[in-house]
Amino acid sequence: MSQLAIYPGSFDPVTYGHIDLIKRATRIFDEVVVAVVNNAANETLFNADERVAMLQETTQDIKNIHIEVFQGLIIDFAKKKKSNMLIRGLRMISDFEYEFQMALTNRRLDEHIETVFLMPSERYSFLSSTLIKEAASLGADVSSFVPEIVAKRIQEKLQVI
Amino acid sequence: MSQLAIYPGSFDPVTYGHIDLIKRATRIFDEVVVAVVNNAANETLFNADERVAMLQETTQDIKNIHIEVFQGLIIDFAKKKKSNMLIRGLRMISDFEYEFQMALTNRRLDEHIETVFLMPSERYSFLSSTLIKEAASLGADVSSFVPEIVAKRIQEKLQVI
Amino acid sequence: MSQLAIYPGSFDPVTYGHIDLIKRATRIFDEVVVAVVNNAANETLFNADERVAMLQETTQDIKNIHIEVFQGLIIDFAKKKKSNMLIRGLRMISDFEYEFQMALTNRRLDEHIETVFLMPSERYSFLSSTLIKEAASLGADVSSFVPEIVAKRIQEKLQVI
Amino acid sequence: MSQLAIYPGSFDPVTYGHIDLIKRATRIFDEVVVAVVNNAANETLFNADERVAMLQETTQDIKNIHIEVFQGLIIDFAKKKKSNMLIRGLRMISDFEYEFQMALTNRRLDEHIETVFLMPSERYSFLSSTLIKEAASLGADVSSFVPEIVAKRIQEKLQVI
Amino acid sequence: MSQLAIYPGSFDPVTYGHIDLIKRATRIFDEVVVAVVNNAANETLFNADERVAMLQETTQDIKNIHIEVFQGLIIDFAKKKKSNMLIRGLRMISDFEYEFQMALTNRRLDEHIETVFLMPSERYSFLSSTLIKEAASLGADVSSFVPEIVAKRIQEKLQVI
Amino acid sequence: MSQLAIYPGSFDPVTYGHIDLIKRATRIFDEVVVAVVNNAANETLFNADERVAMLQETTQDIKNIHIEVFQGLIIDFAKKKKSNMLIRGLRMISDFEYEFQMALTNRRLDEHIETVFLMPSERYSFLSSTLIKEAASLGADVSSFVPEIVAKRIQEKLQVI
Repeated sequence: MSQLAIYPGSFDPVTYGHIDLIKRATRIFDEVVVAVVNNAANETLFNADERVAMLQETTQDIKNIHIEVFQGLIIDFAKKKKSNMLIRGLRMISDFEYEFQMALTNRRLDEHIETVFLMPSERYSFLSSTLIKEAASLGADVSSFVPEIVAKRIQEKLQVI
Repeated sequence: MSQLAIYPGSFDPVTYGHIDLIKRATRIFDEVVVAVVNNAANETLFNADERVAMLQETTQDIKNIHIEVFQGLIIDFAKKKKSNMLIRGLRMISDFEYEFQMALTNRRLDEHIETVFLMPSERYSFLSSTLIKEAASLGADVSSFVPEIVAKRIQEKLQVI
Repeated sequence: MSQLAIYPGSFDPVTYGHIDLIKRATRIFDEVVVAVVNNAANETLFNADERVAMLQETTQDIKNIHIEVFQGLIIDFAKKKKSNMLIRGLRMISDFEYEFQMALTNRRLDEHIETVFLMPSERYSFLSSTLIKEAASLGADVSSFVPEIVAKRIQEKLQVI
Repeated sequence: MSQLAIYPGSFDPVTYGHIDLIKRATRIFDEVVVAVVNNAANETLFNADERVAMLQETTQDIKNIHIEVFQGLIIDFAKKKKSNMLIRGLRMISDFEYEFQMALTNRRLDEHIETVFLMPSERYSFLSSTLIKEAASLGADVSSFVPEIVAKRIQEKLQVI
Repeated sequence: MSQLAIYPGSFDPVTYGHIDLIKRATRIFDEVVVAVVNNAANETLFNADERVAMLQETTQDIKNIHIEVFQGLIIDFAKKKKSNMLIRGLRMISDFEYEFQMALTNRRLDEHIETVFLMPSERYSFLSSTLIKEAASLGADVSSFVPEIVAKRIQEKLQVI
Repeated sequence: MSQLAIYPGSFDPVTYGHIDLIKRATRIFDEVVVAVVNNAANETLFNADERVAMLQETTQDIKNIHIEVFQGLIIDFAKKKKSNMLIRGLRMISDFEYEFQMALTNRRLDEHIETVFLMPSERYSFLSSTLIKEAASLGADVSSFVPEIVAKRIQEKLQVI
C-alpha cells in the first residue's frame, strides 16, 4: 500500500508536540499532509499563511510531508487528497473525549474515514498551544515548548497587539 | 404514583439523541415536560419558538409529553409544575462531570429535587448539538444526526447568516 | 403507571450510601425491589442471608421496598418480577465507566431494559463497601460509613476470620 | 523550614470551597499568600479590589494569611515573594486535567516551583464560582455556597448589570 | 513502505469488537499479525490453541492477516517479526489509561516501537471479553457480542467447568 | 512550624517515580517518614525488610527522611508519629479516583488528617511497580524504571520464583 495520511489541526502555532507527532506519522505512512485549518469561525493568533510558514521552517528536515491549508470539512479535504486516513495526537483524558467525538462524527459523515491516534512523547504530553500563548502573553519565555523561531514570532505578534 | 418529570435542555436544535432520551423517559414517567431553556445569557442558533416548533414536529408520535419554554432556574420551573424529578442524558465522561456538578447544585438549592440520569442508545452517545451545527456550517450533510426537517432548518438558518 | 424497579447489588454489607439511594429510588418508583446478588463467582464477606438480614434491619422505616436474593442474570430476574427498570447509583468517574458498560450490555441482552442512574448524597459519594471492609480489617471504627448494627456485624465477622 | 506558600486564583468571588482550602493550607505552611489574579485577558464579575475586599472580610479569623493582587506569571510573583510553593485545590476529574497541565507548564518554566494539591471538603467538591454566578443571575439564593456578605455583593452587582 | 503491524491481545475469546478492529487495521497496514498472548501468569478461559482456532475461523474472509501465538514481551515478538508497529483498540476512558501506560512503557523499553490506536465501531465500544464470559456463565445468550461459533464454544467450555 | 509528613506506600519495589516524589516532599516538609505498608492482606513480591532495604540503599543521599514499616491504619501510624500530614503522588486519572476515595475515607476516620498531593516528573508519570514487575517477569530490562540495584534484586527474586 502506498498510503497518504492527513494530519489536521490549527497549529496556532506549531509546538514541539506537533513536530514530534509529525515525525511519528512519517514512520507509519508514506506521505503525510499536514493540513492547516482555515475556517472563519476559529479565531487564531496567526493567520493561515503565518502558521504554514512556521510549520515549513520547523519541519524542513522531515521527509515526505506537505503542508497545506484547507477550508471546510476535513473529510472533503481528505477525499480531494484521495486519502481516508486521519492522524490525531492523544495527550490526555480530555483530549480523548473530544477526539472520540470528532472521529465518530467524521466516520458517520464518511464511513471510509479512519482516524489513527498516536501518542506524543510524554515530554510533550501536557503542551497546548493555548496555554503557551497565554504564558507568552504574560511574559513567559516559551522556548522550551516551541522552536526558537516560533518563540520569536509569538513575541513579535504579541507586541503588535 | 402519578409522576411528572422535567427534561430540561437547550435543544438547539433537537437531535436523534434527544428524541431517543424523550422516548426512554416516557417509559418511566407518566408525563414528561420537555423544558426548553430560554435565558438571555445563552446564545443559540435558533430562538425559543423555533426550537419548540422543531421539537413538536419531531416528537408528534410520542405520547404523554409537553413541550414548554422556561426562563430562570429549573428548580423554580419544576416547582411551578409540581414536579421534583429532572431527567438528564449521560453520554460520556465529560458529560458526567458537568451533570454531577449541576445535579448537586440543584439539590442544594432545593433538597427535594432529584435528578434521574438515562443513557441514550450508543448510536447517539457521541452526538452533540454543537458539533452538528459546526459540521453543518462547514457544509456537512447532518441528516444522520437529526431528523430531516431539522437538517433542513439548520441549512436555511445558516444560509441566512 | 404503577412502576416497580429493581436495585441490584452485592450489598456486602449495606452502607449509608446504599440506604440513601434506596430512599431516593422510592420517591421515583411505586415499589423497589432491592436485589441481592448471590452468584458463586463473587466472593463475599457475608453470605446472602446475612446481607439480606442487614438490609432488612437497616431499611425498616422505608416503605414500599422488598429485599430479595437473586441468582443468574439481572435481566432474567427483572423479567420474573415483570419490571424493566434497573436502578444504579453513580458515585465517581470509575463507577461511570463500569456502569455504562453494564447498562449497555444489559440493554443489548434485552432491549426493553432501562437503567436509571441516581446520585447519592455527596456525603456518601466516596463510600465503597470494599474500602470499608479493608479499613475495618485494619481496626478502623467504620460507624460513620455504615449503620451501627452493620459495623458490629463486620467486627464480629472479622474476629471469626 | 519557615515556609511561605502561594494560593493563586481568580476568587470571582470567594466561595466556601476557597475558604476551606485556605484553612487547610495554613495547617501546612507557616504563611499563605492568597494571590488574586488580575490579568486583562480574564473577564471577571468583580474587579480585583472588590475580590480582595471580599476575601479579607471572609477570612478575618484565619491567621498567617495575606491577600495580594498579582499580574503576569504566577512563577514571577512567587519569585518576588521568595516562595516556590503553589497551592491548588483539586475538586473533580476535569480539574485534575487542567491543574496537571498548569503545574507541569509552571514546572518547566521554573524547575524549582512545586505545586501542592489539597482536597476541599466533599461538601464543597462540586462548587464553582462560575456556576454560582450563573445560578445567582437566574434568581437563586446562593447563601449556602458563599458567605452571607458575598451573596449580598453578588446580588448588588447583578442588579447594576 | 511495506508495513507489517502487530495487534497483540488475549482474545479470550475473540469478539465482534476485535474483528472490527482487525478489519480497520488491514486498511492501514499491508500485513497484520494478530498476536495471541500466551503467558503463564494470565489465566484464560480458552487455551492458546483454542483462541487461535476461533480467531482463524472468524477471520477467514480478511486478507493479509496472520494469527500467531507469542510468549514474553511484545517488543521482542515485534523485533522478531521485523515490525515496530503495534495496534491497539481504544474503547473507553479506562482503556485509555491502561493503554497509555502500556504504550509508554513499551516505548521506553524500545524507542523504535510505535503504538497506533484505532477506534472500534461505537456498536462495539462497550464490549469486553470479561463481561461476555461473565454474562455467558450466568446463562446469557451472547450471540450478539461474538460470532455464532464463538458463542457455541463458550457454552461448551462453561458446561465442562 | 516544624512539620513531619508521612509518605505511605507498598514500595514493592521502589521506583524512580517514588524517589522523585520523596525528594519533592523533603522540599516542603522538615522531615519525611517513608512508611512501608506491611499488611497480611497485601501480597507483595518483596517482604517488608527487603523493601525497606532497597529504599534505604536508593535514598541515601536524601536528607531528613526515615524509612519505617507500619501495620494497620495509616491514620494510627500518623498519630503515633504525631503527624497529621500524608503525602501521595498523583500520576494519572485512575490514580486520582482511588486517591480521592482514600483521602476522604482517612479524613472521615480522623478529621485532622490532611493529604497533600504532589506530582512526579512527567518522565515518571506512567511508571507503576506492578507494570515493572510484569515486564521484568517477561524478561524486560527495567533499569530505566528503577535504580540499578533494584533492577538486580527484581531479577534475583524472579529467578528464585
